[in-house]
Amino acid sequence: MNELQIIEIIRQLFETEDYPLTDDVAYLPNGLAFKVDMLVKSTDIPKGMSWYQVGRKALVSVLSDVSTKGVRPEFMMLSVALRKGIKEEQIKDMLMGIKDLSVRYGIKLIGGDVNRANDLAIDCVLFGSYKNKVLRGGAKPGDLIYVTGEFGLTAVGLDYLVKGREIRNSRLKGLALKWVYEPEPPVEFNLDVVESGLVTSSMDSSDGLAFTLNEMAEQSGLRFLIENYPMSEEIIKMIEEEGRDPLLDAMYGGEEYQMVFTVPPEKEQEVIKKAKEHDTIIHRIGHVTQGKGVYFARESKKIEKRGWVFTF
Amino acid sequence: MNELQIIEIIRQLFETEDYPLTDDVAYLPNGLAFKVDMLVKSTDIPKGMSWYQVGRKALVSVLSDVSTKGVRPEFMMLSVALRKGIKEEQIKDMLMGIKDLSVRYGIKLIGGDVNRANDLAIDCVLFGSYKNKVLRGGAKPGDLIYVTGEFGLTAVGLDYLVKGREIRNSRLKGLALKWVYEPEPPVEFNLDVVESGLVTSSMDSSDGLAFTLNEMAEQSGLRFLIENYPMSEEIIKMIEEEGRDPLLDAMYGGEEYQMVFTVPPEKEQEVIKKAKEHDTIIHRIGHVTQGKGVYFARESKKIEKRGWVFTF
Repeated sequence: MNELQIIEIIRQLFETEDYPLTDDVAYLPNGLAFKVDMLVKSTDIPKGMSWYQVGRKALVSVLSDVSTKGVRPEFMMLSVALRKGIKEEQIKDMLMGIKDLSVRYGIKLIGGDVNRANDLAIDCVLFGSYKNKVLRGGAKPGDLIYVTGEFGLTAVGLDYLVKGREIRNSRLKGLALKWVYEPEPPVEFNLDVVESGLVTSSMDSSDGLAFTLNEMAEQSGLRFLIENYPMSEEIIKMIEEEGRDPLLDAMYGGEEYQMVFTVPPEKEQEVIKKAKEHDTIIHRIGHVTQGKGVYFARESKKIEKRGWVFTF
Repeated sequence: MNELQIIEIIRQLFETEDYPLTDDVAYLPNGLAFKVDMLVKSTDIPKGMSWYQVGRKALVSVLSDVSTKGVRPEFMMLSVALRKGIKEEQIKDMLMGIKDLSVRYGIKLIGGDVNRANDLAIDCVLFGSYKNKVLRGGAKPGDLIYVTGEFGLTAVGLDYLVKGREIRNSRLKGLALKWVYEPEPPVEFNLDVVESGLVTSSMDSSDGLAFTLNEMAEQSGLRFLIENYPMSEEIIKMIEEEGRDPLLDAMYGGEEYQMVFTVPPEKEQEVIKKAKEHDTIIHRIGHVTQGKGVYFARESKKIEKRGWVFTF
């Protein structure tokens, strides 16, 4: 049993035509859209992360999702499960990590629940209003494929933290750990491009870039052709100097809270302008064609659909 | 540290005048109200409960809360954390427990999350529309105090399941286990009396009846005087025959998903009529006076505020 099979069971039991369970947020006809995401310590928290960063990450993952789908987060609910023995200071630090980020985006806490469990879990609900819906499957042939941010860094950071693989370049090490411990989704840019109608499909990349691209290609019924690495030349060079494959690191290695999106060619200049306005890094990594699957064009290599999927 | 102290920290960090965190549901100005509740296996699931009943209970506890506050549940979100090794049949049974109850009340699943953790947790969000707000603290002097259902049964059942204390009367045993394993909150009655404006304050009793009454008395700034046991004569007699104190069992022993509510005397007959219509058991257990605290009048005994509160 894996996570995707369980989601399939849930869909078979609960899904109706009016309320599909195939996308990242639930857009309701009343103009509100909803998202829930649970962070679990034993699976989602790398070694050395502070309590502040744990709390922050619980909100980051939902913020990334809703902003990628053009939903302006207004309200939050929090259910926390805490282990016996947790200290008051740890709880306060964790809550401050959530609070600081919620204040920055004007999100109001309206409810929650406190429980005791044999694991730490934070289940975070966000909802708010939307102007435009954007689905995983809306890409058209000829659309350009864009990502925000730099990929590959978190793979390097996680290999260091989880497997102890050293990072010789100290600048790369600093960047990689920053991206692992304090991910910073480009919330305002994401919202702006969706609300401005510049995006035909979008998805947050936190299940892994390869998984995300394949999911979007599948749901669009089209082929995603990747031509460029989703990272700057400088980072490609740093990662290669560590004896690593930047493409593998970008596609399969990390947990980035970035937006993957498709743009009609005539809207590309507007997207570039928005990125400058919001000081957001973006990379054009390819384009959409007829066909199926995700391919890296330079070597005609198939990018397999693998990602962060729990097994049970 | 206990649960109430943690909730106090959360209130200090997040609460605003417009969005108080003191009640059971969040009533938003847009006419929707929200509630989230997490069920955790290691703390909330008694021995011998089936997977179907576990899933069912996750929804029961939120249904009880929202209906007690006059919120008609329309939409649901579910985050589940599952332990490694869980079987497909167990997951399906658990989901069926949720589904059967959600279908009965026309609740639609719109989103969720699946995770792996070192404990089983089901976080269930319900929301829907409301006509009238009803708070914990709305009671007036002279109001009558009512409860739905029979109290005391779940204390007997839990003592049997958790501490192995035998129940000699087989009819009592059957009733007690039924109330523990398949609690049945009187959803339609609860909604009807609130929507009909018959209730001045209300709260679900699942934190324990003594806790609930004290909380309502405190928030109303009044005294709750208890004159009658919250159970039928037949059940009092059965519990006494087991050598137990029915009042203690009712106040501190169990986990009932019932509604505790106050009614102006001139509306009592209407409440009784609604109870008959919905085939719902209700008991008038006392009335509200000037003063503080909760007292059992017959013996002028103070009912202390203790209940189901987690310590960490």
